[in-house]
Amino acid sequence: MLQFAQFGAGRIGAIHAANLAASGRAALRHVVDVHAPSAAALAAKHGATVSDTATALADPAVGAVIIASSTDTHADLVIAAAEAGKAIFCEKPIDLSLPRVDACLAAVAKAGVPMLVGFNRRFDPNFFELHRRIQAGAVGSVEQVVITSRDPGPPPVSYIKVSGGLFRDMTIHDFDMARWMLGEEPTEVFATGSVLVDKAIGEAGDIDSAMIILKTASGRMAHINNSRRAAYGYDQRVEVHGSAGRLIAGNRVGTTVEQADGKTVSTDLPLHFFLERYADAYRIELAAFLDAVEKGTPMPVGAEDGRQALVLADAAYRSLTEGRPVTIG
Amino acid sequence: MLQFAQFGAGRIGAIHAANLAASGRAALRHVVDVHAPSAAALAAKHGATVSDTATALADPAVGAVIIASSTDTHADLVIAAAEAGKAIFCEKPIDLSLPRVDACLAAVAKAGVPMLVGFNRRFDPNFFELHRRIQAGAVGSVEQVVITSRDPGPPPVSYIKVSGGLFRDMTIHDFDMARWMLGEEPTEVFATGSVLVDKAIGEAGDIDSAMIILKTASGRMAHINNSRRAAYGYDQRVEVHGSAGRLIAGNRVGTTVEQADGKTVSTDLPLHFFLERYADAYRIELAAFLDAVEKGTPMPVGAEDGRQALVLADAAYRSLTEGRPVTIG
Amino acid sequence: MLQFAQFGAGRIGAIHAANLAASGRAALRHVVDVHAPSAAALAAKHGATVSDTATALADPAVGAVIIASSTDTHADLVIAAAEAGKAIFCEKPIDLSLPRVDACLAAVAKAGVPMLVGFNRRFDPNFFELHRRIQAGAVGSVEQVVITSRDPGPPPVSYIKVSGGLFRDMTIHDFDMARWMLGEEPTEVFATGSVLVDKAIGEAGDIDSAMIILKTASGRMAHINNSRRAAYGYDQRVEVHGSAGRLIAGNRVGTTVEQADGKTVSTDLPLHFFLERYADAYRIELAAFLDAVEKGTPMPVGAEDGRQALVLADAAYRSLTEGRPVTIG
Amino acid sequence: MLQFAQFGAGRIGAIHAANLAASGRAALRHVVDVHAPSAAALAAKHGATVSDTATALADPAVGAVIIASSTDTHADLVIAAAEAGKAIFCEKPIDLSLPRVDACLAAVAKAGVPMLVGFNRRFDPNFFELHRRIQAGAVGSVEQVVITSRDPGPPPVSYIKVSGGLFRDMTIHDFDMARWMLGEEPTEVFATGSVLVDKAIGEAGDIDSAMIILKTASGRMAHINNSRRAAYGYDQRVEVHGSAGRLIAGNRVGTTVEQADGKTVSTDLPLHFFLERYADAYRIELAAFLDAVEKGTPMPVGAEDGRQALVLADAAYRSLTEGRPVTIG
Repeated sequence: MLQFAQFGAGRIGAIHAANLAASGRAALRHVVDVHAPSAAALAAKHGATVSDTATALADPAVGAVIIASSTDTHADLVIAAAEAGKAIFCEKPIDLSLPRVDACLAAVAKAGVPMLVGFNRRFDPNFFELHRRIQAGAVGSVEQVVITSRDPGPPPVSYIKVSGGLFRDMTIHDFDMARWMLGEEPTEVFATGSVLVDKAIGEAGDIDSAMIILKTASGRMAHINNSRRAAYGYDQRVEVHGSAGRLIAGNRVGTTVEQADGKTVSTDLPLHFFLERYADAYRIELAAFLDAVEKGTPMPVGAEDGRQALVLADAAYRSLTEGRPVTIG
Repeated sequence: MLQFAQFGAGRIGAIHAANLAASGRAALRHVVDVHAPSAAALAAKHGATVSDTATALADPAVGAVIIASSTDTHADLVIAAAEAGKAIFCEKPIDLSLPRVDACLAAVAKAGVPMLVGFNRRFDPNFFELHRRIQAGAVGSVEQVVITSRDPGPPPVSYIKVSGGLFRDMTIHDFDMARWMLGEEPTEVFATGSVLVDKAIGEAGDIDSAMIILKTASGRMAHINNSRRAAYGYDQRVEVHGSAGRLIAGNRVGTTVEQADGKTVSTDLPLHFFLERYADAYRIELAAFLDAVEKGTPMPVGAEDGRQALVLADAAYRSLTEGRPVTIG
Repeated sequence: MLQFAQFGAGRIGAIHAANLAASGRAALRHVVDVHAPSAAALAAKHGATVSDTATALADPAVGAVIIASSTDTHADLVIAAAEAGKAIFCEKPIDLSLPRVDACLAAVAKAGVPMLVGFNRRFDPNFFELHRRIQAGAVGSVEQVVITSRDPGPPPVSYIKVSGGLFRDMTIHDFDMARWMLGEEPTEVFATGSVLVDKAIGEAGDIDSAMIILKTASGRMAHINNSRRAAYGYDQRVEVHGSAGRLIAGNRVGTTVEQADGKTVSTDLPLHFFLERYADAYRIELAAFLDAVEKGTPMPVGAEDGRQALVLADAAYRSLTEGRPVTIG
Repeated sequence: MLQFAQFGAGRIGAIHAANLAASGRAALRHVVDVHAPSAAALAAKHGATVSDTATALADPAVGAVIIASSTDTHADLVIAAAEAGKAIFCEKPIDLSLPRVDACLAAVAKAGVPMLVGFNRRFDPNFFELHRRIQAGAVGSVEQVVITSRDPGPPPVSYIKVSGGLFRDMTIHDFDMARWMLGEEPTEVFATGSVLVDKAIGEAGDIDSAMIILKTASGRMAHINNSRRAAYGYDQRVEVHGSAGRLIAGNRVGTTVEQADGKTVSTDLPLHFFLERYADAYRIELAAFLDAVEKGTPMPVGAEDGRQALVLADAAYRSLTEGRPVTIG
């Protein structure tokens, strides 16, 4: 049974640890977190030991790591884990700096360890099925992709400041989704944005609302729209237009109850919280990581995917700043 | 932590055992099943012991039992468990014979043990929310209920023969749902039925398609339609009409993917398998049992509910046989 | 161009006259109504003459009549029109008394004139398409039909008193729909009902809420639920279960606008008013009458259909009164 | 009763003439078309006279004109009609050249005649209701608009060549819709496009697939996606995100029939043909024109709106050609 060291015992770390326990295929051996009570609680819950990084990575019984700590620690942990020969499950983003991401990729390549980057949405059953149908030819050749990605509410400005900004923190998921659905690398990015939700976000140097167009060499196009606030919940939809039809993956709702009264016919709002919306995705993502490690097959979302999404995010910022489309690669 | 003895290690028993383990609030101590390998496998999976009935019930560490064995064993187990002072979680139906059900109720009442009857659908989040809204007055006074309940495919005729027939095996869930949604006891039952799906079911003395009308003393009405086969999957819907509006709880689907091509706009079929359709319901049902045992509060679906659904099923058979509405109580 | 005499210049008469004018295939020549101002207004609008019954029917230029006067006048007008050799478009019901309906059918048969009975819902594009698919085998052999038919609000009690009651006034449409969808004649009717909406309806000797089950010789079943009030609008749905699947025809809504806010996702209510809900149906119904007259083909809904729906309504009243299922034929 | 001269007796001219006749509020007096048989047929159908332009405009009985001839004739006719003092209903676009449009606007202003430009979609009940709710504050302050506008199939290349190209021919409707929904003038346009549907369109110097982002001075954004082909029909949707929620107006379908079988749950495709999809819109548009002429109120879509949409289309072409966002105004 694969033994894990996990870095980060916060909200997302707790999810991964719980999925690991429930998988019945792996065990949590070490928990590392700068916040000692969190580490202790998570370790206790899953029968693991609180460790420091060096100890955890030096343990020969550990075959894999989950990196779910704060973003600024990811790169060092990836490199150290690679050098220790561990399989790596790393939350997105690998890092906010492309050179550091490249250093990670180099370390991973040199060590020959498998690495999955946590683009959890690829494992959402809805988006996964949509993509499966594209692959199966259900709508012919892909021509245009429209991604709606709107958070229920903005994070605190303190988080915004260290997040790398909207494109690297939030849109990065959508860049990955666009690449996956387009089936081709975008070669041009045009991004525009505004501060419409919260002036404090603008004062922190970021935007809270954005629209983006990506284009590939063969002329396929993708549109992304983002907002840090959606009054009605977490809005996560993908629409793909192909030569033979259209595929849409919509939001998940709490219940199927429909109420008709003297005013309207109403149904449930989309699930509000990302941990709830993507609960299945996180579970399946970890299972996919375990599958790939166990069978030695390629990771479904690899380090290169993590890098490429950041390339698009960086290009989007350049486009936003310079007011022109930016060419990639 | 509450310790359980579980009777029955089959398909539904495996579900309850897994939910018990995942609850983190209770432990499985004994597994009893006439089929030794099933008992051994389930016991091994959850760190329990394979026992016989007497041993399991004699264990003072056991506080509660799950009865998920074949229907003909339920009544004896209920009575024995009651006499042993255990809290009882009993799969529906309690028994196919009303006198035996009454014997169970007497034993339970005498022992003063809590008992939940496994009408899992009450715990389905969709039906639960619909019912909650009725209680909250969302549609005023309830007037009519329409229940659609259609299985994806018929069970083997061997099962039909011991099932107690359509009304006691399948419709019994709908009778319970009707009672719950109506908010009043039905006092009249009219049932009619046909063999439209499989002649062998008719040859076994049962029907495979039915329509029923229930009526309460105040004039509220409920309709149930059943079939042992639905080509498109497991069709489980409830519609409630009140003085101020309408509530509908529809089917659950696998994904939200919608495909439009040259022919149609299509979406996913309803979830096909009852264990998948009601996975949440089974989990919540067990949690509700644990809550009630821990807090000493009344069971959300008690022994009397189990009895009353059987009274309606018996009346439906009398109505079907005699070709007239049958009065109850 | 076919010339019409129309009896009845009220709400429904105005609809038929307007559709006739818009068809470009027929002309209104005589308008007859006991209420002179209504007759004058409708005649003026369509360039017709206000006449009395004798004059209108004696006019050799008149090839067809529309009977849209009060129900108690239908039978005499049908017989007179038949004897005058005119093609007959008669609003439902032909009459509230079966012997008088039979007298009408005899007169029509003797005269050999074509007659359409105004079961407008057969021409609703939604129900028509549903029926077309049944015929095309889309769901295999029909097994069960569920008809939801609920008015937005009750008519005045004065109308209730002359209406023939819920089953002959309102459910008669559903009886026709059930016959059409079942593809077989019902041989058994069980009806139950209550006064839940308006006590005055009960005091007038009628019910305002009903549930019905019909059964055919081969065992097919249909359920109808009725209410004189639906807070959310005019609820008119048909659901057909066959051996190979299910067809549902839902309500029409005003717009496709969906609104999501902090509380719900809401869409439009069903169209509220029957003239709006069935505007297309009335137009297509008249065109179908004109087609059949012009081509000499059979009427899509004939006098016999009008009779058979009344037979079911009468049986439903007997069932309601006697508290037992009633056999037909 | 307002008397009309109509220029153009083709497909769209026939629609307007029929709506005019059905309105009961206006009459067609002159029909002018270079194709004599079309003019004769339409004139005959509506009791009008075939005329030439000079005669029609010189007729003092004529109060208004409908300009539904080929695009290259619009500007001359607008100017001549304005000089003749007639109210003007002009199909979109006014002209493909901005200077000529300005000449039209000058002539109309000088003559003081009312002019409606045929952006029919503003009168579609779905989009109209969506806009009404924006105005009513249903979703707070508008932040982002997403417009999906995809034709069922490309027109012949011969038409493409004289159409002014995708942005002036097809997207021009979406530019108008975006302006209307945004509630502010776009000040920046970024457009990109590809030839993905038909190489012959590319050889004719145009594109067949496009994505566009518009931005206003206050930072509101709109996205438009276009294709000359949608395998599943005419796809016309508008989505508006505001500070307090989201509004979506979807496609119209033929019937509400839903079919569930062993494979999928399927519903009707969107209405395929624009004349069917927008039948209500054309009728309401003409009524709005008549209302404004009769009451002397402002036109709901005026000449300036026609100009502004062309400004956006021109800017989109500049953006496409120059590969950069283009600033307006």
